[in-house]
Amino acid sequence: MSLLKDKKRGGEEKCPHPKKSGLFSLTSSVHKSYHIGFVRRVMCNGTSEDSLFSVPLEHLCPPLQSVVQVNFFCDYEESKGNYLVDVDGNCMLDVYTQITSIPIGYNHPALTKVMTDPKNMGTFVNRPALGMMPPEQFFEKLVNGLMAVGPKGFSRVQTMACGSCSNENANKAIFIWYRVRAGPWISGVLLFFFQVPGCPDLTLLSFMGGFHGRTLGFLATTHTMAIQKLDLRYPLDQFERENAQEEACCLEEAEDLIVKWNQKGRHVVGVVIEPIQAEGGDNHASFDFYRKLRGITKKHGCAFLVNEVQTGGGSTGKFWAHKHWGLDDPADIVSFSKKMLTGGYYQKDGFQPDKQFRIFNTWLGDHTKNLLLTEVIKVIKTENLLDQSKRSGKVMLEGLYDLQDKYPHLLSRARGIGTFCAIDVKDEDTCNNLILKARNKGKTLSMKKPREEPGSEGWPVLFWLCWLEIKGIWPLRPDGSSRCS
Amino acid sequence: MSLLKDKKRGGEEKCPHPKKSGLFSLTSSVHKSYHIGFVRRVMCNGTSEDSLFSVPLEHLCPPLQSVVQVNFFCDYEESKGNYLVDVDGNCMLDVYTQITSIPIGYNHPALTKVMTDPKNMGTFVNRPALGMMPPEQFFEKLVNGLMAVGPKGFSRVQTMACGSCSNENANKAIFIWYRVRAGPWISGVLLFFFQVPGCPDLTLLSFMGGFHGRTLGFLATTHTMAIQKLDLRYPLDQFERENAQEEACCLEEAEDLIVKWNQKGRHVVGVVIEPIQAEGGDNHASFDFYRKLRGITKKHGCAFLVNEVQTGGGSTGKFWAHKHWGLDDPADIVSFSKKMLTGGYYQKDGFQPDKQFRIFNTWLGDHTKNLLLTEVIKVIKTENLLDQSKRSGKVMLEGLYDLQDKYPHLLSRARGIGTFCAIDVKDEDTCNNLILKARNKGKTLSMKKPREEPGSEGWPVLFWLCWLEIKGIWPLRPDGSSRCS
Repeated sequence: MSLLKDKKRGGEEKCPHPKKSGLFSLTSSVHKSYHIGFVRRVMCNGTSEDSLFSVPLEHLCPPLQSVVQVNFFCDYEESKGNYLVDVDGNCMLDVYTQITSIPIGYNHPALTKVMTDPKNMGTFVNRPALGMMPPEQFFEKLVNGLMAVGPKGFSRVQTMACGSCSNENANKAIFIWYRVRAGPWISGVLLFFFQVPGCPDLTLLSFMGGFHGRTLGFLATTHTMAIQKLDLRYPLDQFERENAQEEACCLEEAEDLIVKWNQKGRHVVGVVIEPIQAEGGDNHASFDFYRKLRGITKKHGCAFLVNEVQTGGGSTGKFWAHKHWGLDDPADIVSFSKKMLTGGYYQKDGFQPDKQFRIFNTWLGDHTKNLLLTEVIKVIKTENLLDQSKRSGKVMLEGLYDLQDKYPHLLSRARGIGTFCAIDVKDEDTCNNLILKARNKGKTLSMKKPREEPGSEGWPVLFWLCWLEIKGIWPLRPDGSSRCS
Repeated sequence: MSLLKDKKRGGEEKCPHPKKSGLFSLTSSVHKSYHIGFVRRVMCNGTSEDSLFSVPLEHLCPPLQSVVQVNFFCDYEESKGNYLVDVDGNCMLDVYTQITSIPIGYNHPALTKVMTDPKNMGTFVNRPALGMMPPEQFFEKLVNGLMAVGPKGFSRVQTMACGSCSNENANKAIFIWYRVRAGPWISGVLLFFFQVPGCPDLTLLSFMGGFHGRTLGFLATTHTMAIQKLDLRYPLDQFERENAQEEACCLEEAEDLIVKWNQKGRHVVGVVIEPIQAEGGDNHASFDFYRKLRGITKKHGCAFLVNEVQTGGGSTGKFWAHKHWGLDDPADIVSFSKKMLTGGYYQKDGFQPDKQFRIFNTWLGDHTKNLLLTEVIKVIKTENLLDQSKRSGKVMLEGLYDLQDKYPHLLSRARGIGTFCAIDVKDEDTCNNLILKARNKGKTLSMKKPREEPGSEGWPVLFWLCWLEIKGIWPLRPDGSSRCS
């Protein structure tokens, strides 16, 4: 922190209650707009809500990167369990968990043990090209890690570095699968020039509000969209009839698009969907919707890619959100990342490319993440965290229902499954205020601005994202307090 | 290795000279074809060259992944410096270094020290979302790591997970840079439906034989190619006149393409190139070619993206290969990965996107890699490894010249800069034999099959890739031997 500290030595007044002398909490203000990048000091006693600096964060940090997205700087050595500690020593119940990517809390002893085990040293210091020169225990770790929680019916797993490249490569696997079935592979020369027939016009169907990554492929190859956006009423079980009607329209349109694009010769060879549209604003659908969509993909010979990057890992109360659908054959490929620590995807046998190096890159993930994941999975199983997630989620969702009953002019559409919960807030200012107040009361939340879509109602959505509550089984603060003061 | 070992307990004969009892080296045979995936036992005494199994590797490993690309399984705890040890204990001089991604050898003490430092524990166990909640020392590590070797004139750096997503995001940064200069950003609604003008028809010019990643974007958005492939004669300095003519043709065609595509309204907003086409077969060009190409990009207002994923990190004798060009303003964006341990790119101020979350993902790299990289850079500087790379490269290239003089019917076109050297071998069988024999003599090499391009002469190229020789300063085997027997 010395860089930041040095920058602060310019005569500005110091926080009266810092936990660490001379350090300031650099918190993006959410007062004026969605993360506008101005700093504020957050004192330990929570009294500093209005003490905004008018100094942009850029002026306090070396100008190496955009810092407008930075919420605050963290002390990861001091953070524990569900509690995130910032550089001032402020301790917050973390309901955002690094964009839902911390599976069993901060500094879990099972994970620190992996790090201090001398026999893991070589793996952490030397990163192998896993596709060509894997370490001795590579397959063993895959069997005890990823395959130990692999969805039923999936015999294969391909590791990748992150969620975006997992989805991109899953898409490639689908295109290759289709081409190989369609006949002999076209000469590389034509592929090389991106011309048909070597580079055929294949289509992946995705849904409005879906989010599958920010790399160019998944921005560029999402050719068609089911324009009929699901606009359901919550709680889902109280509006079953209305929602079923809405879902039927959407399914009809999806099938219609598949037929039309196939007729145009731009074959819809796959459909990609999230079990809950997370980045899109925590949009849920009924399990029956997914069952019927899966039926449509089978009817038309489309591969079904279920993107569990955000939903996988246990926060819905099952290890994979698609397990809630209760299907024997729920998907052809399931992609993951975030709480799984490594990116990658499970695939059925048929999706293994026919030729080597089609799905490939230098590292193909990071074996250190497999080591850590193996322990994460053990902890989730032995400590029964999926049940814990259901129990905590129930408490959380009931709390959200109570809140929206109490403040119907501010809050609406509380929804969730497990700890994967959300509620809509009236407008952006209210939402920003709520997040700021929650932070100063020791909870860090996230919000999602709605996309500028036609027909969007402009309501910011507040996330309470994806959180395995482990306080019960690994108590950090037996008194239940979440504040450091 | 127990999984593999268990699979082997089927009555097959055991290696007579295993270093570790009961373990076999699972080495892809390169006898029959390029990595066909059959196993062979490699004994420590190097006598087993012909003892091929006819058992596909798939039958020995759990069927979780394609293993046709696997060369052999490694013991990363036992590997040291430039020497890679396989699961049988065979010790090989590693001239391939995990597809050129190991910067200062295996298990370097400076890196093991990072791992055993208790204050780094939190970083290794808790992976932060670096864009939103960076750790205390984040900018400090960037300043002492990536920025300590940042190319001149680059004030900003964006970390990413790997080379492909570094290039993809660099491309996005270029498109955004162009659009922002061209006028106010088009409404998100149009972008959302991938229609013009919200999704304008922008073009990135790349070169035949160039390789920038396997994700969909860089496969799909490489719209146009300079068809005139550089076909130079080596050594470059002996054929200056002929090569200059060839390069002039290519430059003329590149400029012509920029003009034509601009006229078509599909603006060429950037040009992407590697300082040496590595995956494409170690194709070099004169420094003057790059200087002139840079001039063309400036003349036509194209951003110049220099892809140093393969060439960066010191193996050419300078930290960045583009430094050999001797330009004050060599590039607008420089991407990296591999030996830099983290992916990412340096960019000039103007390429910082105007809005937040345009260039973003959950992790934005991995801070553990920044910790390790900081030490790597210290070692390269204090131990003067760039000079070492020049010296070792000179010895290596002279050796290659001698070899091709001695075996002109088998070898040709020896070329290289620093330790980034290559030589062409007559045909695939000869190349496979050479790699296999080298491995059994304790050296692991790589080969690159030429792409099926129009006009390709079908000669496999043998890589001796990207290698920082550190034996001199950190002797593993003072007697200079590279064999374990």
